[in-house]
Amino acid sequence: MKQLKITVLGASGIVGRELIRLMERDNFPVGSLTLLGGEKSSGSFICFKGEDIKIKKADKKSFEGSDIIFGCTKASITKEFLPFIKASKGYFIDNSSLLRLDENVPLIVPNINCHCIKKENKLIANPNCSTIITLLAVYPIFELYGISAMEVTGFQAVSGAGQGALEQFKKEIRYIPNRENVPLSFFPETIFGNVIPMIGASSENGFTDEELKMQNEGRKILDDSSIKINCTCVRVPVERCHSFSVTAVLKKSFTVEGIKKALGNAPYLREYSEPYFPSPLKSEKSMSVCVGRIRKNMAFENAVSLFCCSDQLVRGAGGNALETAKYIAETFL
Amino acid sequence: MKQLKITVLGASGIVGRELIRLMERDNFPVGSLTLLGGEKSSGSFICFKGEDIKIKKADKKSFEGSDIIFGCTKASITKEFLPFIKASKGYFIDNSSLLRLDENVPLIVPNINCHCIKKENKLIANPNCSTIITLLAVYPIFELYGISAMEVTGFQAVSGAGQGALEQFKKEIRYIPNRENVPLSFFPETIFGNVIPMIGASSENGFTDEELKMQNEGRKILDDSSIKINCTCVRVPVERCHSFSVTAVLKKSFTVEGIKKALGNAPYLREYSEPYFPSPLKSEKSMSVCVGRIRKNMAFENAVSLFCCSDQLVRGAGGNALETAKYIAETFL
Repeated sequence: MKQLKITVLGASGIVGRELIRLMERDNFPVGSLTLLGGEKSSGSFICFKGEDIKIKKADKKSFEGSDIIFGCTKASITKEFLPFIKASKGYFIDNSSLLRLDENVPLIVPNINCHCIKKENKLIANPNCSTIITLLAVYPIFELYGISAMEVTGFQAVSGAGQGALEQFKKEIRYIPNRENVPLSFFPETIFGNVIPMIGASSENGFTDEELKMQNEGRKILDDSSIKINCTCVRVPVERCHSFSVTAVLKKSFTVEGIKKALGNAPYLREYSEPYFPSPLKSEKSMSVCVGRIRKNMAFENAVSLFCCSDQLVRGAGGNALETAKYIAETFL
Repeated sequence: MKQLKITVLGASGIVGRELIRLMERDNFPVGSLTLLGGEKSSGSFICFKGEDIKIKKADKKSFEGSDIIFGCTKASITKEFLPFIKASKGYFIDNSSLLRLDENVPLIVPNINCHCIKKENKLIANPNCSTIITLLAVYPIFELYGISAMEVTGFQAVSGAGQGALEQFKKEIRYIPNRENVPLSFFPETIFGNVIPMIGASSENGFTDEELKMQNEGRKILDDSSIKINCTCVRVPVERCHSFSVTAVLKKSFTVEGIKKALGNAPYLREYSEPYFPSPLKSEKSMSVCVGRIRKNMAFENAVSLFCCSDQLVRGAGGNALETAKYIAETFL
């Protein structure tokens, strides 16, 4: 395969670092690697295949000649550099929320809708990591039976909120058991020994922006504007791997055995049957989405409930972007 | 008020200790206090109002002359002593699951159905703590609008599984951050930094016994055999206080404002509006059930979603039993 010129914007963040690790793990055909950051991170180094690569301060010329550019920053930073990224003519796979609902930009989950990427789509959006994991878990069910509505409660890991969140959590782990106070440097409450049922800013209808992503992005990825998804996002004191309690109302009648078989056949899923169950600790560093607790729902007609877990940095953010990049490299480059 | 002869079976367990603390806190009219345990705990002391009371080994004569007996053991122990408890003619308030679904035994949540206790009901069952908290949170909604179905996902504290569970968790908190191994002395996995989506034994239909309690007990407490409740119980690394993500489908049309008002008027509820939210740490030691994140559900017709938290030892087990005892003392003794 052709060796590629790869650029990572936001290389020093949690998602950027994970992506770089995954390119190394998968022996992705990186010919040259340009790492970009802001004022704070530029000048520091990240190791890739034994070589320390210096992070450069991103500017308008940073993207020239790139085959693939990964965006691992928040939306406002993506927005700032988007004109220069576009001018580079490279493929841009963006982890921020900026382009996700833009109708000219494909929103991609490999294993679901890579076919939506055309050669001329130089801008590609990576979905929210919770959406990626939940959709991957239910996709074989969606294909076989159709889904009209979903109720989702998320158990979301601290690393999903970035470095600052992890720093607060790690200090709490260290000091709280010794009865020492830890300032709330990131979350509005202590997260160690607690759960925080509010992720992101709350909107007028009472949902947070994080909760609305599941339906908004889910409809686009599944190409089904009728699916209704209600989501409650809760931060839990887990370092990495998001989990979701999911109930899906199906359009066609089903059996639990049929669903287990469909899930068991999906190559990216790991299915657990009782007494085994998926958990965050078992899901760390894996590309798999783990599913279990599959059962006929007792409250709603023709509905199934399940529990799924996956490493939101590996499968959810970095890995999803890398799988998308592999598809682009194989298909268009 | 008459000073009562109180007996606690299972005094040294988590629920027993909490109950004794609450009797002290509330200045419950304890004339004499008999503390009972098994082989392991008998001979040890528990402090009540400054006095160290020795735990006696329970035998057939232990219950004689009691006005109120609290059962704070598991079902098999309750079963063993039930004939002697019955012979004592005292009121027996049992925290175990033994009598909950017995049609001759009222299953009581004060603030909901104390009126079901008649003078001659000497056996009274205390519901599962998750059921108590969830029902208290939705009860004003149930009264005003009726509920046809509920979807519940629980974030359940480690102390809900008893002393052995807390011991594993506390060792993990102490040793895992130092990269030392901790044996799995209670849970099938590490609970620190993890979530375990399986509480209790799984039954043939894929639900655990813990998950089935919510519907079975809920129907009896609400005196509504038609309500459908689907439950997913997940253990989280929280020391005390259970939380629940709840969606309820209502029978009558509603407004979110109407629901907030109804919940705000319930004396035992503490209602949070955005940007505030209930959390386990904020709920510790309180008799309140905290509710928040109240919003119109996006997936189901005429449904409301909310998040609730309460100290499952205080409001859920010990406190529920004590409130029931207060009702009995005031009404029948």
